[in-house]
Amino acid sequence: MDMKEEIRKRITMLRAEMKSAGADYYLAASTDPHVSEYVGDHFKITEYLTGCTSDNVILIVEQESAHLWTDGRYFISAALELENTGITLMREGQAGVPTVHEYLTEHLGKGQVLAFDGMCVRASEGYRLREIARKKGASVEGMEDFVSGIWIDRPQLPSNPIRVLPDEIAGKSLEEKVAEIRAKMEKCGADYFVLAKLDDIMWLLNIRGSDVECCPVALSFLLLGMQTIDLFIQESEITDELNAYAREKRIKIHEYGEMLDYLKNYHFEGPVLVDRRNINDAMHSVLDERAELIDKSNPTEMLKAVKNATEIENIRKYYILDSAAVCRFICRVGKMVGKEFLDEIKAAGMIDSLRAEIPGFAGLSFHTISAYNANAAMAHYQATPDHSAEVKPEGFLLVDSGGQYLGATTDVTRTVAVGPLSDEMKRDFTLVAISNLALMYTRFAKGTTGSQLDMIAREPLYRYACDYNHGTGHGIGFMLNVHEGPQRFSHPPKEGPDVEIVPGMITSDEPGIYREGKYGIRTESIILSVTDTRNEFGEFYKFEPLTFVPIDRNALDLSYMQPVDLMRLNDYHRQVREKISPYLKGEELEWLLAATEEIKRPE
Amino acid sequence: MDMKEEIRKRITMLRAEMKSAGADYYLAASTDPHVSEYVGDHFKITEYLTGCTSDNVILIVEQESAHLWTDGRYFISAALELENTGITLMREGQAGVPTVHEYLTEHLGKGQVLAFDGMCVRASEGYRLREIARKKGASVEGMEDFVSGIWIDRPQLPSNPIRVLPDEIAGKSLEEKVAEIRAKMEKCGADYFVLAKLDDIMWLLNIRGSDVECCPVALSFLLLGMQTIDLFIQESEITDELNAYAREKRIKIHEYGEMLDYLKNYHFEGPVLVDRRNINDAMHSVLDERAELIDKSNPTEMLKAVKNATEIENIRKYYILDSAAVCRFICRVGKMVGKEFLDEIKAAGMIDSLRAEIPGFAGLSFHTISAYNANAAMAHYQATPDHSAEVKPEGFLLVDSGGQYLGATTDVTRTVAVGPLSDEMKRDFTLVAISNLALMYTRFAKGTTGSQLDMIAREPLYRYACDYNHGTGHGIGFMLNVHEGPQRFSHPPKEGPDVEIVPGMITSDEPGIYREGKYGIRTESIILSVTDTRNEFGEFYKFEPLTFVPIDRNALDLSYMQPVDLMRLNDYHRQVREKISPYLKGEELEWLLAATEEIKRPE
Repeated sequence: MDMKEEIRKRITMLRAEMKSAGADYYLAASTDPHVSEYVGDHFKITEYLTGCTSDNVILIVEQESAHLWTDGRYFISAALELENTGITLMREGQAGVPTVHEYLTEHLGKGQVLAFDGMCVRASEGYRLREIARKKGASVEGMEDFVSGIWIDRPQLPSNPIRVLPDEIAGKSLEEKVAEIRAKMEKCGADYFVLAKLDDIMWLLNIRGSDVECCPVALSFLLLGMQTIDLFIQESEITDELNAYAREKRIKIHEYGEMLDYLKNYHFEGPVLVDRRNINDAMHSVLDERAELIDKSNPTEMLKAVKNATEIENIRKYYILDSAAVCRFICRVGKMVGKEFLDEIKAAGMIDSLRAEIPGFAGLSFHTISAYNANAAMAHYQATPDHSAEVKPEGFLLVDSGGQYLGATTDVTRTVAVGPLSDEMKRDFTLVAISNLALMYTRFAKGTTGSQLDMIAREPLYRYACDYNHGTGHGIGFMLNVHEGPQRFSHPPKEGPDVEIVPGMITSDEPGIYREGKYGIRTESIILSVTDTRNEFGEFYKFEPLTFVPIDRNALDLSYMQPVDLMRLNDYHRQVREKISPYLKGEELEWLLAATEEIKRPE
Repeated sequence: MDMKEEIRKRITMLRAEMKSAGADYYLAASTDPHVSEYVGDHFKITEYLTGCTSDNVILIVEQESAHLWTDGRYFISAALELENTGITLMREGQAGVPTVHEYLTEHLGKGQVLAFDGMCVRASEGYRLREIARKKGASVEGMEDFVSGIWIDRPQLPSNPIRVLPDEIAGKSLEEKVAEIRAKMEKCGADYFVLAKLDDIMWLLNIRGSDVECCPVALSFLLLGMQTIDLFIQESEITDELNAYAREKRIKIHEYGEMLDYLKNYHFEGPVLVDRRNINDAMHSVLDERAELIDKSNPTEMLKAVKNATEIENIRKYYILDSAAVCRFICRVGKMVGKEFLDEIKAAGMIDSLRAEIPGFAGLSFHTISAYNANAAMAHYQATPDHSAEVKPEGFLLVDSGGQYLGATTDVTRTVAVGPLSDEMKRDFTLVAISNLALMYTRFAKGTTGSQLDMIAREPLYRYACDYNHGTGHGIGFMLNVHEGPQRFSHPPKEGPDVEIVPGMITSDEPGIYREGKYGIRTESIILSVTDTRNEFGEFYKFEPLTFVPIDRNALDLSYMQPVDLMRLNDYHRQVREKISPYLKGEELEWLLAATEEIKRPE
């Protein structure tokens, strides 16, 4: 039976469950009990129900209809995935498309029931849903798991051993980090701090796992008191090393599955700091009954975002090795195209194995995106063995990839010309290059926020009425998730603060132009915020590039570049040559020298 | 007795009042019962007590000390004004300087009393002060007027006749506007809407007054119901015209002074929409006791900010006439300097009288700032007959001025070279010009906010580690206040939303560079947001200049300009020539043609 038919069957079974439970609406989100962006297969409920692989989905099923909301990165792919499933795609942010909340506000009827599994819904979302239901005289059932019953072959919870990170690599001991957090707790009058966000827990305790593909995190929950540390993990993940470490650091270990009951019976002697946006609704409801809650951003987030000297040192080192691998990859692609067979999958395999050769490589930081021409217009396109376009000697190949290393998490995108380009392709590529360099080379006053810097990257595209419907940049973890907060380059966030960019943050700089059905261009380098200068006008910061891979000079149309743009490109290429040439030889070195040669301004 | 001594005496008298009332802290703000930015003399309490003329002041007096907070625009002037008064200047936003709230949080002691006159304190401020007092176990007295007792020769309340604005000029009738507001009230479930903000009341009722210098507003309060309109004004301001208008529009008129009692005894049958940031604390406290309050931004603000077609047509017309007057002024200054005596006051008089010649002129929109060299480094410097610098044939003269017309409110700043300039002066002037034009010529996607556009103006200065410590731009009223919200170009606001810039808004574009003790440069043009284009990437907006006055070519250093910067300058000057030349003749026309001549790119 084909997939679309299977999907329709699953929705039908879900509707039966809903009926018998008296639920008029069932809501599911593409997250897990830890509000993760990437989730283990066990938690891929929305994908199981709809076939939609987007990482940012909200699904609402009714007896007569089903709607799925996702963001601009996935409009094109989701449209294909939802075809013939009877599920309507709701393009977030597009004119005339109601938000989930607007939709429910309009449709929820008096006395109706909205059901969801609170373990897999953000508490801030649950809060809004209850608000809306209350206003409409409807009710909310926050503990309904309809899926387990339907999902026969549901994958088990992942379970992999937990490693301890030595202080020499973490740069800061658990004691130092916990002391910093407890100081923040004290400042806001909290005696406890509850964490469900996996990368925050890993960072704070200096441990790593591998329960989520590409993310070195272990399924866990944390209850931090002023004297106590309670950690909830699966027994099967405990090693002797971890046991010894836990004893030394006085971490009390509990079984992962017993967290809710433990909280239900815990005697809280003071207020609990908990970030409603970073915890699931079920946990939050339990805590809300047991204690006074202080709703504030995880103090872990900001401390984790500002990398320490040891982390930065490792990051610089690995980004150069990682960049060298990407350079070798681009060189090889150039020599293959038109001569031997190359398709998207084979290209992805090439870059992945070049990374694997790097000492300290520990896996990919996300599935490599290898997309040829029109496929690259789908921002998170994934080639599959049966859908892998051949890379012909014309147009663009876009490759977005990254690695996990014992000392860094990387992420880089380059778009390369594999043959002749149209004038439009060259113009678009040049605008994206100008945009990428404008942000990388900007200087900014202390206090400048991510949304203001976002504008620096978009302005060169706006000049020609072009844009991209995703953020310009995201924070990146240290041996952790490739997407990490709290800072980002994007339009002002609807929820949460517009975070100031401060020295020590590493953030991606990845503008793009996507033309549906034609091609997609993205140039992504990672940049580190550093202090620049202080004078009568105040304090200024700037960025230091961490990624050193040439921007394809063959795809440029110099007539779109101002002198300052060309100066920046040449300066960046000078740095690339300086940093990377020691790691290349023979024809790969020749290629690098040619790719980074200074471009003279046309008279 | 000299002023400083007089100030010390007043503070001493205030402290006596405080003692007898048992107040440990007395707080006063530079506002009035209408949270106005510019206030009538009757309300200039902080100026009376401290001699500080800043428009944005918070004063805290204790028995042993007195502190005055103000923002970057006034650091230099306030420092001079507070010298030898025993009052400490607190430079808002400077490193190590606590905010008012941080100061009180640190100093307020258990059982102490913080007193203020709630009629002249913002409700949002009063709310915060009570919060802080509660946390510190202190108490708040929100109805203490210590000043009336001290201020013997206190000016009377201003009282001037109220005029009615014909619909042909307002562009929208009172009925249309009230209907729009009531729709917004309904949307948020409010049955009443209370307004204290004068320009909002004037706009909504299509009336104008002249109780605040340079602002055509009448002291008033408004209570809008679903069927009723209650207006509180001084009886002495009522004309036959207004009486007739009120009868026709069913506006019930009450005495200005009876507002508080009226609200105390009013029977509210439903929730009241009131913007805590736009009402005084005393009113808010009364309303809070009488009704359920919905705290939301005045719906009037946004409707008032987006000008209607009739308003825009009038604005375009008057801005050209106003620009022509400024051009004539600059031409004359050029011919006078070094030949006949010219000082700041005389220059101000010249531009003021040139404006007065324009048909429909109704006064200045603010006191003309005429500042030579170092004086211009004080952003809101005011020359006085006894302190008026002579304009010598060297350096810069900065003139910031505007008019009120029967059809527009204008605001424009130009800095002109009156003689030789240093290289630093030329560089700074050029960077400011580039910055001003970058914003004027930027295109931006729908959804872009004021703080993002602020970055477009600052980036050219940031490149050279320069900045200005004021916003880049403010909204401007239609025959109303020269500063109006809600939109602004600035860093993300600490309070209130970061408003999206939408078509129909008129906003100033006024970057600057100020070097204390040396000179100040500001170039200010007013720009109108208009729709530009819509394509596969979305909808785009752009700006249309309303101000057409040359940017002094003699002060430019072309070596700092990219080709695109020069293109913009030439295009702007082409427009200036086209719009203004019909209004000039003889040597003034010759001057304009020379001042707007195309500048060729240096080879």
